[in-house]
Amino acid sequence: MAQGIVAVGGNILENAQFSDPATGTFCVRTGFETVEEDLGAVRRALSQELVSFSPTLAIRPEDCRRRAIVMVSKLDHCLVDLLYRLRMGELPIEVPLVVSNHTDLREVARREGVEFEHVPVTPDTKPAAEAKLLDLVKAYRADFVILARYMQVLSDDLCRQMPGRIINIHHSFLPGFKGARPYHQAYQRGVKLIGATAHYVTADLDEGPIIEQDVVRVGHGQSVDDLVILGRDVERVVLARAVALHAEERVMLAGPRTIVFRP
Amino acid sequence: MAQGIVAVGGNILENAQFSDPATGTFCVRTGFETVEEDLGAVRRALSQELVSFSPTLAIRPEDCRRRAIVMVSKLDHCLVDLLYRLRMGELPIEVPLVVSNHTDLREVARREGVEFEHVPVTPDTKPAAEAKLLDLVKAYRADFVILARYMQVLSDDLCRQMPGRIINIHHSFLPGFKGARPYHQAYQRGVKLIGATAHYVTADLDEGPIIEQDVVRVGHGQSVDDLVILGRDVERVVLARAVALHAEERVMLAGPRTIVFRP
Amino acid sequence: MAQGIVAVGGNILENAQFSDPATGTFCVRTGFETVEEDLGAVRRALSQELVSFSPTLAIRPEDCRRRAIVMVSKLDHCLVDLLYRLRMGELPIEVPLVVSNHTDLREVARREGVEFEHVPVTPDTKPAAEAKLLDLVKAYRADFVILARYMQVLSDDLCRQMPGRIINIHHSFLPGFKGARPYHQAYQRGVKLIGATAHYVTADLDEGPIIEQDVVRVGHGQSVDDLVILGRDVERVVLARAVALHAEERVMLAGPRTIVFRP
Amino acid sequence: MAQGIVAVGGNILENAQFSDPATGTFCVRTGFETVEEDLGAVRRALSQELVSFSPTLAIRPEDCRRRAIVMVSKLDHCLVDLLYRLRMGELPIEVPLVVSNHTDLREVARREGVEFEHVPVTPDTKPAAEAKLLDLVKAYRADFVILARYMQVLSDDLCRQMPGRIINIHHSFLPGFKGARPYHQAYQRGVKLIGATAHYVTADLDEGPIIEQDVVRVGHGQSVDDLVILGRDVERVVLARAVALHAEERVMLAGPRTIVFRP
Repeated sequence: MAQGIVAVGGNILENAQFSDPATGTFCVRTGFETVEEDLGAVRRALSQELVSFSPTLAIRPEDCRRRAIVMVSKLDHCLVDLLYRLRMGELPIEVPLVVSNHTDLREVARREGVEFEHVPVTPDTKPAAEAKLLDLVKAYRADFVILARYMQVLSDDLCRQMPGRIINIHHSFLPGFKGARPYHQAYQRGVKLIGATAHYVTADLDEGPIIEQDVVRVGHGQSVDDLVILGRDVERVVLARAVALHAEERVMLAGPRTIVFRP
Repeated sequence: MAQGIVAVGGNILENAQFSDPATGTFCVRTGFETVEEDLGAVRRALSQELVSFSPTLAIRPEDCRRRAIVMVSKLDHCLVDLLYRLRMGELPIEVPLVVSNHTDLREVARREGVEFEHVPVTPDTKPAAEAKLLDLVKAYRADFVILARYMQVLSDDLCRQMPGRIINIHHSFLPGFKGARPYHQAYQRGVKLIGATAHYVTADLDEGPIIEQDVVRVGHGQSVDDLVILGRDVERVVLARAVALHAEERVMLAGPRTIVFRP
Repeated sequence: MAQGIVAVGGNILENAQFSDPATGTFCVRTGFETVEEDLGAVRRALSQELVSFSPTLAIRPEDCRRRAIVMVSKLDHCLVDLLYRLRMGELPIEVPLVVSNHTDLREVARREGVEFEHVPVTPDTKPAAEAKLLDLVKAYRADFVILARYMQVLSDDLCRQMPGRIINIHHSFLPGFKGARPYHQAYQRGVKLIGATAHYVTADLDEGPIIEQDVVRVGHGQSVDDLVILGRDVERVVLARAVALHAEERVMLAGPRTIVFRP
Repeated sequence: MAQGIVAVGGNILENAQFSDPATGTFCVRTGFETVEEDLGAVRRALSQELVSFSPTLAIRPEDCRRRAIVMVSKLDHCLVDLLYRLRMGELPIEVPLVVSNHTDLREVARREGVEFEHVPVTPDTKPAAEAKLLDLVKAYRADFVILARYMQVLSDDLCRQMPGRIINIHHSFLPGFKGARPYHQAYQRGVKLIGATAHYVTADLDEGPIIEQDVVRVGHGQSVDDLVILGRDVERVVLARAVALHAEERVMLAGPRTIVFRP
């Protein structure tokens, strides 16, 4: 890669490489500066150098931020948090649109100047709703989708069309409590730590590659409602971290696992 | 309880109470000093006061430490750690005996002046081996048993004979990875945190009431062997904490969960 | 205490006691239910029983929430967080008023339906501003004051008038980096963890009794700006936890330290 | 660097680079395999390529482990832990010698087959003792020195002779409690977390570049002795992590801070 970068008058600022022994995937993330202003020329130089490896190549000017559509249902804590971080300049992304199967959070989006689209979902309309979502992804030139406590399961078909491009926050420490009402499960099991997991969505529910996880300590005196409240804090932080890692191209897929080049 | 304590000239130093809403169990832990030197008299005074509640009552002079038999197989890190802590005065218990289905760790026990008993286990001899264990519990007046990476599953029958008196350390963050080789499972799933769980042993494998848990962060660059090494640190600390909590009567059972009065 | 509670037909639900060896302070926190509806009668019964101990006695019906005035300057993350938690029912307090030495956050308060008072502070007007604050505390029947990144140092005099009733969030892991710009200090020192500390305000700046602290891991690749962003997450959570602990009377003063009865 | 590696028939397996904005230091760590068996030839190829940068170059065959002398006084928990990890293959170093200003830990070293040298230190004999230490470093071809709770302050002169080659474990979360008896200071201040810090030793006591830190939660009910016990666990783990990071050349100096390429 160094040769291609040199060929366009470039200079490496930062670099991380990892060869995954389990899958043989070789991952590289390089930050470089160059006098070449034509992104196409840079891409050609790198492609030419690396042609024998048939790499998956993603090149992005640093100031050209990844664009995300955020999907929600009725719970607002993750959306509120993401929009607040955007306003504070904490997240290197653009969010042009919030999509929901309900209308409850319309005002939350509007208040921050983000468009809102209501796409209701019933068993009958699900295919149409997902087609609509794909249209919106195109129309808004979205690079990825964030499921910020979106309470609908996506179809296998949709998952396959956007591999590694849909991030979900699951409200448990996977693989601990899959499926519905994980905080109830955690309470009943009497665990001493609860957590949250941000992962890429795949056709296999709650089994997609994990990007980030964290936990918080709980005690016997805390009710299910207390766990829900404590869990919100972890969900927010884990989702925001995963989105930032993804948006800075720090996450790469190696089979069922992720390679994460932390800052 | 206060009345019974006053009746024997006692003075409460420390107290914690909790009423578990899920099971209706009312738990109290009281530290008190008294001029009454006859423990039987103290027990009678408290029993009399509390008779209408039919409580499970455990009374212990503070300097009369709980006695534990430690069971191991071939891995020594938990045993080495427990014995080191004993020598340093970190654990308020006595360990008169180490029992193992192998002979590898005989010297580890002996070096610290602890007796060692080899009780081999095969499918055929399992009932006899467990009967032998119960004999040793009696002979050594052991209050509880610590499974410090003991690699045999205890029979339902044995579990039922010692409810809340056998502590196991499981090398994963339960209920995440049950059964065998949890670090391999964790690696394959690509989790970002691995953990350990100390729990009471019940007939339902890996499902007993959890006493303590903790986790440590892992990354893509760490192999299964690295996870095993990192996991050892968590296992040691979690088991030692659980043993100390149990030995100081800080852990009480409320159905499938524990009430833990932390110091 | 049990006798006084029984005397008013009460029933203890929850209880925690601790005798601080360093100061000799004996702390008790009891949750009880009673048929007696006259709070004065309850107070008299308890006072009478405990008269020989001259206790500091605080009695509160559970549904009568503590009232707090929140003070801010220009940074909004702690205020936004507190108000969001209030709306979600996460914090057992009432916030009738936000006070600021600037007007920037007026809208943040108003949007959540909370009154806002601008009390500018200059070296000359400081005494008058603090007198105004005390008036507001009385007028709004505030039980305590939360300094949610309020950038003015309170006078010794004001601190002494409200001991244990003003909570500050300091943006470092005290006593690590006192004074101004702790994230710059943390960056320059190259620490691997940064933190936040919620403490009661005393005349001795950054030396008041600590209520709650937490930390987050940082690396060499993170700039001062990154530390500020990471620090915000810790500040928010630590302040919210401290406020909840205080509001539920879980924090008691024992000399320069706090006794915290965690849930 | 890639060119030099290619020039000796090499293949990069792993790579991490970082340019420190505060000092302008450019740090690279590369793992590569090569058919060239002559280390001198590899060094010449890399030196030649990088000559214009005048780099500090460290090249090591992976199976040629760094050698460390461990220095202790009377406390054995860090030494016991390091030697246990060595036996388990957890630490990629060799420890040919333990040096102490006391004789208490002679048996601990001997039991693990490590030589032990008693080098007493008094104000009068300190220069001679330090000269002796430097002789031992040479004689045992030690790459670095580990102060595993060694209770003597090294002279400025010695510190300057081994920059970045002496690792100390300080039993507090620096810069929180410097100097003596940090657990007593922590208890008196009433902090809610205590920690440990591994750092390179410089002439400026407790101010050397930090390699690793961690903390553990404490409560009001824990005495100074309890903090000491809890602290031991953190000290052990933090020191072991720092030693492993250093031994794998993952730590580089950039002024008063370290760059740490985590695995």
